[in-house]
Amino acid sequence: MIKKILIANRGEIAVRIVRACAEMGIRSVAIYSEADRMALHVKRADEAHNIGEDPLAGYLNPRKLVNLAVETGCDALHPGYGFLSENAELAEICAGRGIKFIGPSAEVIRRMGDKTEARRSMMAAGIPCTPGTDGNVADVDEALREGDRIGYPVMLKATSGGGGRGIRRCNSRDELAQAYPRVISEATKAFGSAEVFLEKCIVNPKHIEAQILADSHGNTVHLFERDCSIQRRNQKLIEIAPSPQLTPEQRAYIGDLAVRAAQAVGYENAGTVEFLLAEGEVYFMEMNTRVQVEHTITEEITGIDVVREQIRIASGLPLSIQQDDVQHRGFALQFRINAEDPKNNFLPSFGKITRYYAPGGPGVRTDTAIYTGYTIPPYYDSMCLKLVVWALTWEEALDRGLRALDDMRVQGVRTTSPYYQEILRNQEFRSGRFNTSFVESHLELLNYSIKRNPSHLAIAIAAAIAAHSGL
Amino acid sequence: MIKKILIANRGEIAVRIVRACAEMGIRSVAIYSEADRMALHVKRADEAHNIGEDPLAGYLNPRKLVNLAVETGCDALHPGYGFLSENAELAEICAGRGIKFIGPSAEVIRRMGDKTEARRSMMAAGIPCTPGTDGNVADVDEALREGDRIGYPVMLKATSGGGGRGIRRCNSRDELAQAYPRVISEATKAFGSAEVFLEKCIVNPKHIEAQILADSHGNTVHLFERDCSIQRRNQKLIEIAPSPQLTPEQRAYIGDLAVRAAQAVGYENAGTVEFLLAEGEVYFMEMNTRVQVEHTITEEITGIDVVREQIRIASGLPLSIQQDDVQHRGFALQFRINAEDPKNNFLPSFGKITRYYAPGGPGVRTDTAIYTGYTIPPYYDSMCLKLVVWALTWEEALDRGLRALDDMRVQGVRTTSPYYQEILRNQEFRSGRFNTSFVESHLELLNYSIKRNPSHLAIAIAAAIAAHSGL
Repeated sequence: MIKKILIANRGEIAVRIVRACAEMGIRSVAIYSEADRMALHVKRADEAHNIGEDPLAGYLNPRKLVNLAVETGCDALHPGYGFLSENAELAEICAGRGIKFIGPSAEVIRRMGDKTEARRSMMAAGIPCTPGTDGNVADVDEALREGDRIGYPVMLKATSGGGGRGIRRCNSRDELAQAYPRVISEATKAFGSAEVFLEKCIVNPKHIEAQILADSHGNTVHLFERDCSIQRRNQKLIEIAPSPQLTPEQRAYIGDLAVRAAQAVGYENAGTVEFLLAEGEVYFMEMNTRVQVEHTITEEITGIDVVREQIRIASGLPLSIQQDDVQHRGFALQFRINAEDPKNNFLPSFGKITRYYAPGGPGVRTDTAIYTGYTIPPYYDSMCLKLVVWALTWEEALDRGLRALDDMRVQGVRTTSPYYQEILRNQEFRSGRFNTSFVESHLELLNYSIKRNPSHLAIAIAAAIAAHSGL
Repeated sequence: MIKKILIANRGEIAVRIVRACAEMGIRSVAIYSEADRMALHVKRADEAHNIGEDPLAGYLNPRKLVNLAVETGCDALHPGYGFLSENAELAEICAGRGIKFIGPSAEVIRRMGDKTEARRSMMAAGIPCTPGTDGNVADVDEALREGDRIGYPVMLKATSGGGGRGIRRCNSRDELAQAYPRVISEATKAFGSAEVFLEKCIVNPKHIEAQILADSHGNTVHLFERDCSIQRRNQKLIEIAPSPQLTPEQRAYIGDLAVRAAQAVGYENAGTVEFLLAEGEVYFMEMNTRVQVEHTITEEITGIDVVREQIRIASGLPLSIQQDDVQHRGFALQFRINAEDPKNNFLPSFGKITRYYAPGGPGVRTDTAIYTGYTIPPYYDSMCLKLVVWALTWEEALDRGLRALDDMRVQGVRTTSPYYQEILRNQEFRSGRFNTSFVESHLELLNYSIKRNPSHLAIAIAAAIAAHSGL
């Protein structure tokens, strides 16, 4: 069994991993940049180490992180999500230094990270994929020829992309020609690779993904699906488990596809297989070879602790459950509370949290790294809190979501919370019959007015007095 | 359907009811004494009304509370627990003024509140009761004669008692003779009645209670049991659902007994039937005709919202579930975080909360009315927070409890939290084989040392500097 874990991440996911370690009697080692000196993951871990002045460099240096793991006596490293979580080199260096990487093998990360290679593997395993190019396209001319063959609209995608970046919809030849150099440039900057490919654009699909767990003893199970159709510019905002719109047959089919996909590549640890659903058809989109932001809602409906299972798997233990043991109950929604101003084009709203009060009561979970007095640094993701609600029925889960968002206090920055309350009141959303076009086809939901409560007012008055008195 | 509820209570249970109202689209009206002006239930309710200078009188005046409900346009009143929650007069006045009382009828409250009458009803319904007197005893001589007949040890109990008060164990004739005037005096003061009776003392039993729900359409279900054996002086400290020590057969038997008990008295709304278990025998102890502090853990294992069901029942709706729909999953523990110093004989530790940070992550729920900067008034219950943890297995739930207690910050007052951590590490507790003697037979668990974290130290230093500089 693993005894000490270096957590190669920050923020709420680092806190999440610290908690799993604490519950398993495993020592946790946090890392922090100068900007993260006051971060909650630093306060909560058993040990914390400074990884340098630069806000990002330390979190992105695989060799230094593995060195630190070795120096601090860790026997494992958890990469979280984002940063180096899908970096095959990190997994490789870990393996070379005797540090267990809590995730799949470098070979599998590489294979699923290469979107054209992943498509090939899936097609070979009989997993339905969208029509598209057989591998990468060499230049804009080939892209245009392939676009004509596939038929517009098409998606131009970075082969190494992920997390909703390096991806562009092109409705015509002209749009494809224009998008081509931009995606190449974006992909080169973000992923260090200029490779791109084309897929047929599935118009207004649902985004459905299945959580899988696979151990080193040949057991692979799925934990049902998540509906992540509520997205803005390919960034998920609200996630739901299970999907309120799937039939039990579709649910079983997608779970089975995900298990077959994982088995086809010899997958080990936790992973997510993402699909698009449209007009009754299911298409493989990509596989995420890490724990996801939205693993929480799967935990709520199944009761299975995904991070705990990740650590067990990396320790060489078998899964603590078999497929028949995995039952889902009720509905869970996760709201990504981002420090952004939805009314101002979702502009990040970093700054000091003057007040944070966690909502409580039945069916409410929070995962966050903020606290009253904490200043959200401008260098990282704007997501500052995950609010998760659960209830036995879909209707009750929606109403609980509204209540919990209202109950919560995050003051000092603007957040996406009031926007989510509008979504929760929308009848199309409540009906469950929404797809990835929901956000852009309901821009009227941004026309909310912000409730000013007395404490907001008091802060504003105090600030005004301070400004005028020169304090 | 009920549209507006007067919440005739304060603190965390008032907040709990506000939340249920918010989720159901029901308007909530809070009440507060002067001492409760800054209380969270006042901030969270849709309306709040001052019920006077005296910290207690307003919460204990049934006629004035019903008047207020009528004046504010409420169609229902929720009594919570404690205060007037088991006061038949309140239910009666409500009925007379057209206000729905969210609880059973005045007649049932009266019948179950009279412990000798309740025993008679239960014996008539074939529910096993402890051997004891047939009704009240008239004087100390009759008590001593009955004590000899029943056999020592016996329990001397106030007929109108409850909540662990007005009850004394007597191991001999002499102890009974001594205890008699004391219990009479205590009962007169606390419950306004001098009536007492005797029961055989079941030595070192487990305290097991079953949650029931009964609607006005003749449906009665149980939501399984809670193990409340971890008590100090008859006050529950840690509650568990389901009991880690019951067999499925015992569980089904106790649930069935509880349903039969409720049906025997024509019970309506949520209630709890308390039993003692010893040497394989089950004995009826009492029925609580209100929502209980520990309803939370039943919600965690069944997913059923007890307060929501209470409101539905009072609205005349049928239960939203039938017995076959009620499934339990995993284990839940509730820790009553009391503002007390366990190392100083559990002396109350009222005062200002200098910092409160709710624990988060998977399987953690908090129900509280405290917040950073809130001053706990000295007039009420010392329970300031309910921390509830849930996990799929008993072992994981224990480890999650330890983690969540460690994760939580309640600063400025002493709490029972460090004591609970000791209990969670105790092997007898972890084995599940504990009974009501656990706390008094493990006084060594009070010998913990308090972890001083840097922020505690900073506060202490700042206070010292302030004291010396005369600030």
